[in-house]
Amino acid sequence: MRHAVPFHLVIVPPPAGRSPREYLVEELRTALLAGEIRANEPLPSSRVFAEAMGVSRGTVVSVYEELAGEGYVVSVPGSGTFVAEDLPRPDLAAAPTPARSASGRRGRGVPRHQSPNPHSRQAYAAPPHSRQANATPASGRDVAAVRAVVNLSPGSPSTRFGENREWISAWRDAVRHDLPSLPPPDGGDPELRKSIAAHLRMARGVRCDVEDVVVTAGTSDGLGLLLHGLRAAGAPGLRIATENPGYPTARKVIDRLGAIPVPISVREGGMDLAELGRAPGPFAAALLTPSHQYPLGGRLPVAARLALLEWARKADAVIIEDDYDSEFRHGAPSLPAIASLDTEGRVVLIGSFSKILTPWLRCGYLVIPDPELRARVLEVRATLGQPVSGFVQSALAEFLRSGGLKRHLVRVGREYRHRRSLVIAAAAELGPNVRLDAVEGGLHATLSWTTGRTDAEVVAALAARGVGLAALSAYYHRDTRPGRRGIVFGYGAPSDLELRTALAAITEVLNS
Amino acid sequence: MRHAVPFHLVIVPPPAGRSPREYLVEELRTALLAGEIRANEPLPSSRVFAEAMGVSRGTVVSVYEELAGEGYVVSVPGSGTFVAEDLPRPDLAAAPTPARSASGRRGRGVPRHQSPNPHSRQAYAAPPHSRQANATPASGRDVAAVRAVVNLSPGSPSTRFGENREWISAWRDAVRHDLPSLPPPDGGDPELRKSIAAHLRMARGVRCDVEDVVVTAGTSDGLGLLLHGLRAAGAPGLRIATENPGYPTARKVIDRLGAIPVPISVREGGMDLAELGRAPGPFAAALLTPSHQYPLGGRLPVAARLALLEWARKADAVIIEDDYDSEFRHGAPSLPAIASLDTEGRVVLIGSFSKILTPWLRCGYLVIPDPELRARVLEVRATLGQPVSGFVQSALAEFLRSGGLKRHLVRVGREYRHRRSLVIAAAAELGPNVRLDAVEGGLHATLSWTTGRTDAEVVAALAARGVGLAALSAYYHRDTRPGRRGIVFGYGAPSDLELRTALAAITEVLNS
Repeated sequence: MRHAVPFHLVIVPPPAGRSPREYLVEELRTALLAGEIRANEPLPSSRVFAEAMGVSRGTVVSVYEELAGEGYVVSVPGSGTFVAEDLPRPDLAAAPTPARSASGRRGRGVPRHQSPNPHSRQAYAAPPHSRQANATPASGRDVAAVRAVVNLSPGSPSTRFGENREWISAWRDAVRHDLPSLPPPDGGDPELRKSIAAHLRMARGVRCDVEDVVVTAGTSDGLGLLLHGLRAAGAPGLRIATENPGYPTARKVIDRLGAIPVPISVREGGMDLAELGRAPGPFAAALLTPSHQYPLGGRLPVAARLALLEWARKADAVIIEDDYDSEFRHGAPSLPAIASLDTEGRVVLIGSFSKILTPWLRCGYLVIPDPELRARVLEVRATLGQPVSGFVQSALAEFLRSGGLKRHLVRVGREYRHRRSLVIAAAAELGPNVRLDAVEGGLHATLSWTTGRTDAEVVAALAARGVGLAALSAYYHRDTRPGRRGIVFGYGAPSDLELRTALAAITEVLNS
Repeated sequence: MRHAVPFHLVIVPPPAGRSPREYLVEELRTALLAGEIRANEPLPSSRVFAEAMGVSRGTVVSVYEELAGEGYVVSVPGSGTFVAEDLPRPDLAAAPTPARSASGRRGRGVPRHQSPNPHSRQAYAAPPHSRQANATPASGRDVAAVRAVVNLSPGSPSTRFGENREWISAWRDAVRHDLPSLPPPDGGDPELRKSIAAHLRMARGVRCDVEDVVVTAGTSDGLGLLLHGLRAAGAPGLRIATENPGYPTARKVIDRLGAIPVPISVREGGMDLAELGRAPGPFAAALLTPSHQYPLGGRLPVAARLALLEWARKADAVIIEDDYDSEFRHGAPSLPAIASLDTEGRVVLIGSFSKILTPWLRCGYLVIPDPELRARVLEVRATLGQPVSGFVQSALAEFLRSGGLKRHLVRVGREYRHRRSLVIAAAAELGPNVRLDAVEGGLHATLSWTTGRTDAEVVAALAARGVGLAALSAYYHRDTRPGRRGIVFGYGAPSDLELRTALAAITEVLNS
């Protein structure tokens, strides 16, 4: 039986045994890519389409949301859902195709240009010419062949949010009153600390007291604060064990604040604990990304987590657990946070809302179970000043409390899983010497190889094709030799179509 | 001719030659204090009252606003203006009078308790028992004798804001869009930098390029950033000349970041430049509050400003000009900012929106004309991370651009001038050995003396009466002997009635 829905597209209702939502997303995506619906045309209302397909209206809303997240359609509040303007149309594929501009998807007040900074997993930006309309004619009928310009900054999250009512109302509540005459407390807004503790219990199984939570302006601020607090304990020239390769920004913060980042190699599954055990001490701390090693991926097994706790006990060191994107698992289940295995208060959990919401917010947290260390950290905060706006803290507390963040994570998690499948499909077309890593969670991937072109050459070739991403070598400690050559890229921020374009360029360059 | 306005109060219309606004404020204030209108009674609508008085409706609105700012009346949007509940009623003055509670004037999400910190001009809080209902019977018919509990934290601004539409709409614009996938630029949102440059031109006569402005999370953050940037220039153990007495928080920031605060005495008009000239160098910088010395008051004369520039040239040092409350001048005109006299890029202007808007916001600025120093500061910012939320920056930019801040400054400036007149009147009742300072601008005052009780004793006696304020000795460098004994208190945050109560306690204690 075929239902004609009241526009010119004809779709068979979902067959039994298939998820109606997945089926409809796929059918519409195919129809859109085939040019069966034109740019700016309206899709049927969710009510009409739901009736025609014999599914619930909620299913259709969720299908439209997913397609909007992928960039195929655009929702206009109060008007309906429309086919995106910049959809490649096969019948015009040989003609110039305007690329989607950054401003079309960003809010007012968002900077158009950012200085490129390959040493940050947040701030890496494409070359200056990126994200501008590119009039190079598309070379064929394949979507992936459209030469758009795409920024695959590792770690940049999805920007799709629209006019999120829960978000706007949380901010309105935060700013509608008389002005407070004092700054926020040193540890942060009590309501936000409560919301963060609840979020960590739900998302990471970490049971922490509200008092353990210290609000920060993000991971770098949290790390800096912690280093100041550790230094107050005595030792000058603190030595901090860091993953190699690892997060270059963290190494730079450690370096700038007069501490010493000591590189420890990363093996399958994370930091090489044997190497850590052999490394001459003393260590004030070890900084790790045990749930999703950055940038290589991999999870530290539970036995290694327990061994690390034992090392920390013997070394009298603190473990800094950077759980930067654990909210997104794709298949592989979460392992318990080291913080949740810790009975002695040796683990400090560090995190932020940069990846799960937006780095524009500048808000994160430390969870410090040890009261002495926490008191030192709060003393430093009191001296150097609270940087996190009380308005930000109140609004975020309310957005967490109301469940708005939870719903946002479900929406973007679905987007990321879909885009990750595109990355995996593209990687399957690469030669056997290229290895795909880090796709078991989060919103970035690495492709690496051992011989042949340097990663700098590959990054340059891709930049020439309008694709901005990072070289794996930038993640290695400057005094060590990179173990593998590779590229690191994010699939959180680009639209589905941008990602397809970029992946086509990546496979083309790596296979050539 | 007498107009009976349609409630039981009878007021003569403004006589010729008097400002109708000032006249009506005074008449209503007197009537309210005399108990001629009772708590919770409505005032006539602005239209009715304006007609009866033969003045414009705008005048009446502004009169009601001022009385609301002073705590005499309460505006209920959509309902009208009512006599405040906690107005002391002379006929009941011998019965228990509930004190105004903090929560009555604060917004949701504002912490009720803050840890006392006498070393911050922002965070000084009254003792824990303060701001709670106090059932001690009032001892007489005088308003000032009502034993309320009042926090006179130096530097806390007025909280009166209500549902400020410009403010709410600026925030709405900042948060209503898709989420940006990158953090704000290292130097800050370009729109905010532009708005700050325009504000400084208007308020302080400082002509700066937009690029000179670096957005910070407040004065402490700005000072820390600058110290990191100065250190990158070479010298470890930077020596910074600081005013004595001066802002203790700044000294603590300098100390914590490994630099050395060198105390230079304050004479009439600010830092003693002869002592600075004799002090052994090298100095990386001198930190001053030349427009309104903190906490003693006084302005550095223009000749001294030029001499200071000459010193900086010879010493190859930077002048850090902290212009913390120059937006509020009461009588004495502003002198040109040192930054506006500087032709060599030696002056860094440091400021924040904590005093002129709210310390809850956590936003401020540095103006760094020297491109080399600015580049070093921005490099430090890039390394240690941008702490200021893009949402805060966008909203503040719009609030400045739309003129919302300008209008707010006019409103609170009027409040401050009125409350300052109460401070001056109270000080006139003190003995000749007590000196009043700092009231030529801003929102704080000092009362000081040379012999007799220590300031700790006076602060304790006032705390026992429920009045929280700071001892002048806390503003002196720890290695120096305080020159005068005194108290430092703010008149920005308390209501008019709270201030009257506190001033009565202060005169009582100082005269006993």
